Amino acid sequence: MRLALSELAERFGLELVGDDHAIDGVATLLRASGNEVAFLANPAYRSQLADTQAGAVVVAEADRGAVPGRCLVSRNPYADFARIAALFEARPTLRSGVHPSAVVDPQATIDPTAEIGPHCSIGPGTRVGAGVRLGPGCIIGEDCELGAGSELVARVVLVRRVRLGRRCLIHPGAVLGADGFGLAFDQGTWLKVPQLGGVRLGDDCEVGANTTIDRGALDDTELEDDVRLDNQIQVGHNVRIGAHTAIAGCTAIAGSTTIGQYCLIAGGVGIAGHLEIGDRVRINAMSLVSRSLSGPGEYASGTPIQDVRSWRKNAARFRQLDRLARAMKNESKDSD
Amino acid sequence: MRLALSELAERFGLELVGDDHAIDGVATLLRASGNEVAFLANPAYRSQLADTQAGAVVVAEADRGAVPGRCLVSRNPYADFARIAALFEARPTLRSGVHPSAVVDPQATIDPTAEIGPHCSIGPGTRVGAGVRLGPGCIIGEDCELGAGSELVARVVLVRRVRLGRRCLIHPGAVLGADGFGLAFDQGTWLKVPQLGGVRLGDDCEVGANTTIDRGALDDTELEDDVRLDNQIQVGHNVRIGAHTAIAGCTAIAGSTTIGQYCLIAGGVGIAGHLEIGDRVRINAMSLVSRSLSGPGEYASGTPIQDVRSWRKNAARFRQLDRLARAMKNESKDSD
Amino acid sequence: MRLALSELAERFGLELVGDDHAIDGVATLLRASGNEVAFLANPAYRSQLADTQAGAVVVAEADRGAVPGRCLVSRNPYADFARIAALFEARPTLRSGVHPSAVVDPQATIDPTAEIGPHCSIGPGTRVGAGVRLGPGCIIGEDCELGAGSELVARVVLVRRVRLGRRCLIHPGAVLGADGFGLAFDQGTWLKVPQLGGVRLGDDCEVGANTTIDRGALDDTELEDDVRLDNQIQVGHNVRIGAHTAIAGCTAIAGSTTIGQYCLIAGGVGIAGHLEIGDRVRINAMSLVSRSLSGPGEYASGTPIQDVRSWRKNAARFRQLDRLARAMKNESKDSD
Repeated sequence: MRLALSELAERFGLELVGDDHAIDGVATLLRASGNEVAFLANPAYRSQLADTQAGAVVVAEADRGAVPGRCLVSRNPYADFARIAALFEARPTLRSGVHPSAVVDPQATIDPTAEIGPHCSIGPGTRVGAGVRLGPGCIIGEDCELGAGSELVARVVLVRRVRLGRRCLIHPGAVLGADGFGLAFDQGTWLKVPQLGGVRLGDDCEVGANTTIDRGALDDTELEDDVRLDNQIQVGHNVRIGAHTAIAGCTAIAGSTTIGQYCLIAGGVGIAGHLEIGDRVRINAMSLVSRSLSGPGEYASGTPIQDVRSWRKNAARFRQLDRLARAMKNESKDSD
Repeated sequence: MRLALSELAERFGLELVGDDHAIDGVATLLRASGNEVAFLANPAYRSQLADTQAGAVVVAEADRGAVPGRCLVSRNPYADFARIAALFEARPTLRSGVHPSAVVDPQATIDPTAEIGPHCSIGPGTRVGAGVRLGPGCIIGEDCELGAGSELVARVVLVRRVRLGRRCLIHPGAVLGADGFGLAFDQGTWLKVPQLGGVRLGDDCEVGANTTIDRGALDDTELEDDVRLDNQIQVGHNVRIGAHTAIAGCTAIAGSTTIGQYCLIAGGVGIAGHLEIGDRVRINAMSLVSRSLSGPGEYASGTPIQDVRSWRKNAARFRQLDRLARAMKNESKDSD
Repeated sequence: MRLALSELAERFGLELVGDDHAIDGVATLLRASGNEVAFLANPAYRSQLADTQAGAVVVAEADRGAVPGRCLVSRNPYADFARIAALFEARPTLRSGVHPSAVVDPQATIDPTAEIGPHCSIGPGTRVGAGVRLGPGCIIGEDCELGAGSELVARVVLVRRVRLGRRCLIHPGAVLGADGFGLAFDQGTWLKVPQLGGVRLGDDCEVGANTTIDRGALDDTELEDDVRLDNQIQVGHNVRIGAHTAIAGCTAIAGSTTIGQYCLIAGGVGIAGHLEIGDRVRINAMSLVSRSLSGPGEYASGTPIQDVRSWRKNAARFRQLDRLARAMKNESKDSD
C-alpha cells in the first residue's frame, strides 16, 4: 500500500510542510527510509531529527523548524502517528465460523460472524456477539457475554459470569473471573468464602497479557469504558475502575478499592483494599498506596536508587530516623 | 432454593433475632433485598447497617443492637456468612469421564469418577484421584498425583512430579513444577543447573490464577495443608510454606526460604532466598524481606505515599541521611 | 545408571580425594545417601558438611579439609555439580512429528525432526527448526521462527513475528510478542498505537513461567544470546537486554530501556522506560530504577524490614525528612 502525504494531511487535518510524496510504511526516526513516516513525541528523541532519513516526520508545531525534510504538523503527533500507523497495520482478517477442534456447549449462542479459533471451549449460557474474534485456546465458561467486535487474541480464560463490552481487546494469558481471595479464619483453619459475583468491562477496554481480574464476592468487579490495563496486573474482587484510566504493568489492586476516571497509574504499584482513589490521580511507579487519595493529584512513595554502599548507610539510618528526630528536637530545646 | 432463617440458625449455631423468614440468596448490605442475607464483618461498613434492606444480617454480638431488622448473631460473622453463602452457590456438577478431545497417556491412571475436560493432556505415570475435576485445557505432565476431590479450574499446568493433596483448588493459568531458576556462571556463560525435584501440596491448598510454584532443584518445593495463595504469586524452588499460611497477590518468595505456619503475608511482598520466617509472622504489603524474621511478629518496610512534591524533597534527603545523621552527632558533641 | 567417581573426575577435570566409588544420583548434603553426590557452593551450608552421608561432595579447594569422606575438588563447584547432575537427568526423548490434535497452517514449515505436541496451533509463515520440541498447548502465530533445538515446555504463546535462536527454553505460560502498551491520549479517550514490531531472542535464552515479552512498537524487542529470565518478568516493548544478563522473578522493565551485558538483576525490581543500564550492573531486589545506571556497579533502593511499630515511627519521620534536614541546617547556623 502506498499513500500520498497530502492524503494523510487531509484525512487527519495535518499541515504538510514540503512537497507531496508517496509513503508505504511507518518507522522510528532512526530507521525510517525515505518512503516511511516517523514521528517525534518524546522530547528525549529530538536530537534524532537532524539525521533522520524519514520521508516525513509527524511533529508538533514547536518542532517543525527542527525537521530537515518534510513534516506533517499535528496538534497531537503521537495520536496522529497512531492513526497513520493503523493504516499500514496488517490485521488478521476475521474468519467467521467455529473451528472444528473447538468445543461449544449447545446452550451457548455464537453470532455467525464471529470467529472461534482452534481448541477453544465455550460454556453454556454464553453469548458471543457479532464480529468477535477468539484466537486459539480461549476458554469461556458459563454465562459470559462478549460484546460485538471484541477480540481475545489467544488463550484467554473468562471463567464464569464475565461480560465484555464492545471492541474489547484481551491479550494472551489473561484470566478474568477467577475466584477472589476470600477467606474466613475459623477454628484454626481457613474457610473459603464463596465468590458469587462476576466481572464487567465496558466498551473499548484493553487487558494485557497474563493480567488477572477476579470475580466479585457478591457484586461484580467492574471496569468502565476505555480502561487500559497493561500486562501482569492483578485486580482484586469488587474493585471498580473508572473510565479512561490507564494502568501500567505489574500493578496490583486489592479487593473493594475504587479508582476514579482518567487516572494514570504507573507500573509495579500496590494499592491496598477498601480505598477510594479520586479522578485524575497519577501514581508513580512502585508506590505503595495504603490510604485513599483525592484527585486530581500526583503521588509517590519509596526511596531513590543509589549505589549500594551509599544506600546501605542511608537505609541503616532510616531505622534510626525516629530516634534521630527526637534527639534533634531535644537538641533544639537545649539550645533554646 | 429457599431456606428459613431458623434452619440456618440451627445448622450453624447462630441466634436468630426477630421473626422467622424465608431467604433465597446472599448479598451485600447495600444491595440485599428482603429475601437475602447480608453480613457485617469489616467495621468500615458498619454505617451501612442502618439502611440495609436485607432479610437478615449476620453480625457479631456487639453489633446486634445496630441492626434495624432481623439478625443472626454469630461468634464469627464472616465465617458463618461464608457457610450460608456456600448453600446458595451453584457449583458445577462433576461430569465423570474423559472428554473425547482430551489426550491421556496410556500409562496414566484416571479414577472413573474424575472429570477430564476438553483439550486436557495427561502424561505417563500420572494418577488422578476420585472426584477430581480438570476444567478445559489443563496440562498434566509425567509422574503427577492429584488427590481426591481436587479441582483444576481451567488451563492449569502441572509440569512434572507435582503431587496435590485432597481437595486442592487451582485457578486458571497457574503453573506448578516448572524449572527453578538455577544457573551456574562458568567461563563467561550461564550453565543450567538441572532441576530434579518436584512440588508437593498438602490437603485443602488453594493456588490463585497465574501463580507459579517451581519444582525443587533436588528436594521438593512444599506447601503444607491449608496453604492459601492468591493470584500471580511466585514461589521459588525448594521453598517450604507451613500449614494455614495465607499469602496475597503478587508476592514473590525466592528459593530455599522456609515460611512458618499461620503466617499472613500481604500483597506485593518480596522475600529473599535462604531465609527462615517463623510461625505467625505478618508482613505488610510490598515489604522487602532481606533477613530472617522470628514469629510471632508483624513487619514492614517502605515509605508512606505522599503528594509527589513532598515526596521528591524527602526522597532527596534520604540520599543524604547518613551524612545528616553524622553531622547531627558532631553538632551534638560540639554543644556538649 | 551408575558412574565411577574417577570417571567424573576425569570427565570434568576434578581432583578425586578418597577411594573410587560408584554413584547413581545427586542430592543435597542433608539427604544424600552413600551412592549420591552432593555439593557445597553457598557457604551458609558449610556446617552441613560434617554430617553428610554423601558418597562424595563437590567442593572448592578451600573446603576440602572440611569434608569427612570423599570429595571432588573443583574450581567452580556449583557448575561442576550442574554438569554431574545433568548426567542423571531424565530428559523427555523427542518424539518427532505432529500430534494429530495439533492444528498446523499449511503455510507453516515444520522440520521433520521437530515434535509438535497435543493441542498446539501454528500459524502461516512460521518456521520450526530441527529438533524443536513444542509441549502440549503451545500457540505459535504468524511469521515466527524457532531455532534448532529450542524447547517450549507447554502452553507457551508466541503471538506474531517472534524469532527464537537456537536452544532457547521457554517455560509454561510465557507470552512473547503480545502488543506493547502503546496509547495516545486524544480528545478525552485513548487511541491504540499499533504495535508493529516483533521479538527477537538470541541463542541459549531461557524464559520463565508466565513471563511476558511484548513485541516492539516499530523495531523489535530484543534479547541477545544467553539471557536468562526467571518467572513472571515483564519486558516492555523495544527493550533490549544484553548477552549473559540474568534477571530474577517478578522484575518489570518498561518500554525502550536498554540493559547491558552480564547484568544481574534481582527479583521484584522495577525499571522505568527509556533508560540505559550499563554492562555488569547489579541491582538489588525490589529496587526502583528511575534513572540510567552506569556499569559496572551495584545499586539498591528501599528501606530495611523492621518490626511494624518501629517502622511506623520511622516512616512517619520520612514524611518530615526535608523539614528536619532544613531545621538542622538552621540549627547548625545558629550554633555557628
